[in-house]
Amino acid sequence: MTVLTKELINQRIVRAEYAVRGPIVQRSVEYEQRLQQGDRSFPFDKIIPCNIGNPQILKQEPIEFHRQVLALVNVPGFVDTQEAQNLFQVDAIERARNYLRNIPGGTGAYGHSLGADIVREEVARFLEERDGHSADPNTIFLTDGASQAVQNALLALIRDNNDVIMAPIPQYPLYSAAIAINGGTLAGYYLDEEENWGLSIHEIERAHNEARKNGKVVRAVAIINPGNPTGQCLSKKNIEEVIQFCQKHNLLILADEVYQENVYAADKKFLSFKKVLRDLGAAYNNVELISFHSTSKGFTGECGRRGGYMELVNISECAREQLYKLMSINLCSNIEGQLMVGLMVNPPKKGDASYQRYCHQRDSILASLKRRALKLVAAFNKLEGVTCNATEGALYTFPRIRLSEKAVQAASGCNMAPDTYYCIQMLEKTGIVVVPGSGFGQKDGTFHFRSTILPPEDEVNEVITKMSDFHLNFMNAHR
Amino acid sequence: MTVLTKELINQRIVRAEYAVRGPIVQRSVEYEQRLQQGDRSFPFDKIIPCNIGNPQILKQEPIEFHRQVLALVNVPGFVDTQEAQNLFQVDAIERARNYLRNIPGGTGAYGHSLGADIVREEVARFLEERDGHSADPNTIFLTDGASQAVQNALLALIRDNNDVIMAPIPQYPLYSAAIAINGGTLAGYYLDEEENWGLSIHEIERAHNEARKNGKVVRAVAIINPGNPTGQCLSKKNIEEVIQFCQKHNLLILADEVYQENVYAADKKFLSFKKVLRDLGAAYNNVELISFHSTSKGFTGECGRRGGYMELVNISECAREQLYKLMSINLCSNIEGQLMVGLMVNPPKKGDASYQRYCHQRDSILASLKRRALKLVAAFNKLEGVTCNATEGALYTFPRIRLSEKAVQAASGCNMAPDTYYCIQMLEKTGIVVVPGSGFGQKDGTFHFRSTILPPEDEVNEVITKMSDFHLNFMNAHR
Repeated sequence: MTVLTKELINQRIVRAEYAVRGPIVQRSVEYEQRLQQGDRSFPFDKIIPCNIGNPQILKQEPIEFHRQVLALVNVPGFVDTQEAQNLFQVDAIERARNYLRNIPGGTGAYGHSLGADIVREEVARFLEERDGHSADPNTIFLTDGASQAVQNALLALIRDNNDVIMAPIPQYPLYSAAIAINGGTLAGYYLDEEENWGLSIHEIERAHNEARKNGKVVRAVAIINPGNPTGQCLSKKNIEEVIQFCQKHNLLILADEVYQENVYAADKKFLSFKKVLRDLGAAYNNVELISFHSTSKGFTGECGRRGGYMELVNISECAREQLYKLMSINLCSNIEGQLMVGLMVNPPKKGDASYQRYCHQRDSILASLKRRALKLVAAFNKLEGVTCNATEGALYTFPRIRLSEKAVQAASGCNMAPDTYYCIQMLEKTGIVVVPGSGFGQKDGTFHFRSTILPPEDEVNEVITKMSDFHLNFMNAHR
Repeated sequence: MTVLTKELINQRIVRAEYAVRGPIVQRSVEYEQRLQQGDRSFPFDKIIPCNIGNPQILKQEPIEFHRQVLALVNVPGFVDTQEAQNLFQVDAIERARNYLRNIPGGTGAYGHSLGADIVREEVARFLEERDGHSADPNTIFLTDGASQAVQNALLALIRDNNDVIMAPIPQYPLYSAAIAINGGTLAGYYLDEEENWGLSIHEIERAHNEARKNGKVVRAVAIINPGNPTGQCLSKKNIEEVIQFCQKHNLLILADEVYQENVYAADKKFLSFKKVLRDLGAAYNNVELISFHSTSKGFTGECGRRGGYMELVNISECAREQLYKLMSINLCSNIEGQLMVGLMVNPPKKGDASYQRYCHQRDSILASLKRRALKLVAAFNKLEGVTCNATEGALYTFPRIRLSEKAVQAASGCNMAPDTYYCIQMLEKTGIVVVPGSGFGQKDGTFHFRSTILPPEDEVNEVITKMSDFHLNFMNAHR
């Protein structure tokens, strides 16, 4: 092998890190296989994946209406059978008919490179209702999950390593990984753990000045709202400050809003960057914004579909055309992922046959997520040396763990970051998979881990007990 | 707008061209919309898209078995209903049960970043049967269509613009576009039109020497077999020569084999690079090969699923890990696309309830494609100044058109390549959408267009008549 060697493979890939599916997760996959093959040498009998926001692997039920439509569109003629009428709701059948009428060639044909017209129109209507401002289907691009959308936006922005994208610390590592792969430079702005992971415009300013002082060209600011892994939910004032800052310094805004439906704090409400930008009036019509959404999160949780979209706001027609061409090289995103986007943004309405069941599923899932978030955060705060901010939104907790000098040295002896060492020990002792804070970025000398709030409600107590016992033992072993 | 301007957007995107969905196609989309809105100002009443291998948009029926399985896996509990037993074949129900048992979290959960274990095992068994050599599921990566796989491979190969990827001319423009976006350099080797678009190792050598002489580092040779847009099917000797050449010069082979089921010439047979490489024996175990396959072509034609895979052969473990990490940043490819890969490579077997119907669909589609290929090629060869090689395989014809000096000047007056001018005229007069040869590359001074062989059998005569009438009028108008 002489071409793709360790030294000769594109080193930008080598430099990229993606802890959410990193070495700890790979080790857990191996353990899972061994458990399935009957290996009983572990001190646990199952792997509990809390590393990734993947609700349906932890028994969250899919929304019935959505799945009925998907089943119906896949078999020609199925919508007209008696069996379909027996099994499925009339509004699901009607929706399937509508998609079949409006999607040329059905689910098996390449569609429009930006996504099916009918779905982009559904998204536009959803955005108009959500924000109270007009939305144009031609500026909505359906993608294979929000990840593809983020990567395409970064590809358009980053020309060389002089180009800087600002991103929060801690951040979802898609950003650091994609910036590395595109050969750009990340400038982190710190969220304030003391202020419930609040975003401060002064800190953004500091990071911006530092990058500029280093001779860099700052191109964009990425904002994750609600935050991942931090869960904070931005105020209107916060968002306005970011927009004003970006206008002043000619920066594009990347607004990752995939957790927009996941807000639990009673005094918080999701506000989109698009809404706040438009509310500020025409004076801000030169501020470029790309926002992202996904079918994977919220209460839909359809991660395996790879459904998502981005909306281009105040983006030049020329840039829109270049991004369109980029999508067309991939021909189109997968059609069922597109349909899932349509179903998510245009669910059953009052009076529809599926409406009650839909509301029941939606409300139970969201209420349960909130209960689990509260329970986990409370449990973490009871542990020695652990503090954990409230999960205002999104699907995660991000507790801070204070590790002893002995633990730090033990980690160093294993050639690991201290929080990685802690998380690997947790996996080895409990089968629970969480991601070390170093995978997201954190202030030097602080240590964290990210755990999802997704263990099923009847297993949360078990997870808490296992984690608490592990933590006590870990602390005792490293005094 | 000050960030994503024409000048400041990543210029590698601006430089990329993708004619298969380029300006002619965009114009046809606009015409289609106007026709639907009742605009009767065109000299045609419909758009016939022959620009892209998209069978189901031109009425090719999906394989029933595959679609039944997809419907069944999407609704929890559906497999156990009486309605399912009424409507679907028992082997489809059994397959759906098997997928549901083996895919953690079902179709709505993120799966393994390389793709579901069960599907990668199905692919490995398929490859072993096809080639008579062992295949390892850990070297099989399921992707959102073959396009994503090709792009990831190129991303791993290309470090800067000194790195060269060799690709055929004419080529499928995914290669030129992705090489441009990754900032590499394409070195074309010409296929020989006089030899039915044959691949000559001497021409590959010439192109390689030229690139080396220019100080470039040649990293890989891309081969499309059967050819797109050219349809040629490589002989064992051809493939052996390429492998030996690549061993001698330390080049990786990118084998695009998405048309492996589409071979029509009676004296030709598809042979995979993997088979020929392994047949050559252990002395070639250092030749690196990545091969690609897709659910979009063959007789499956499920383009909208974005199902595909790549197999890594003789790739270092370290490179495999880096490619694995790259896939994990996208979390996973869409699950239903993965299932479609499984269904494609592991269809109903003799004795299964769906077997006869499956064979009937498969054989009718392939026989019809062959008839249409023969008919179109024969028709093109009857036109003044047109010659067209036989379509040995794949889904296209690529006729050469000899244009008069007057036509070339008329094109130049419109600031167009002569074949672009010809294709736009064809669209304007007939509603038929084809892609100019300049979108694929061609010898200087020659002109071609690519047309798929996909118009439904009962419309092929209409297409031929319209194209022939157009051609005659065009020639007369430019004498």
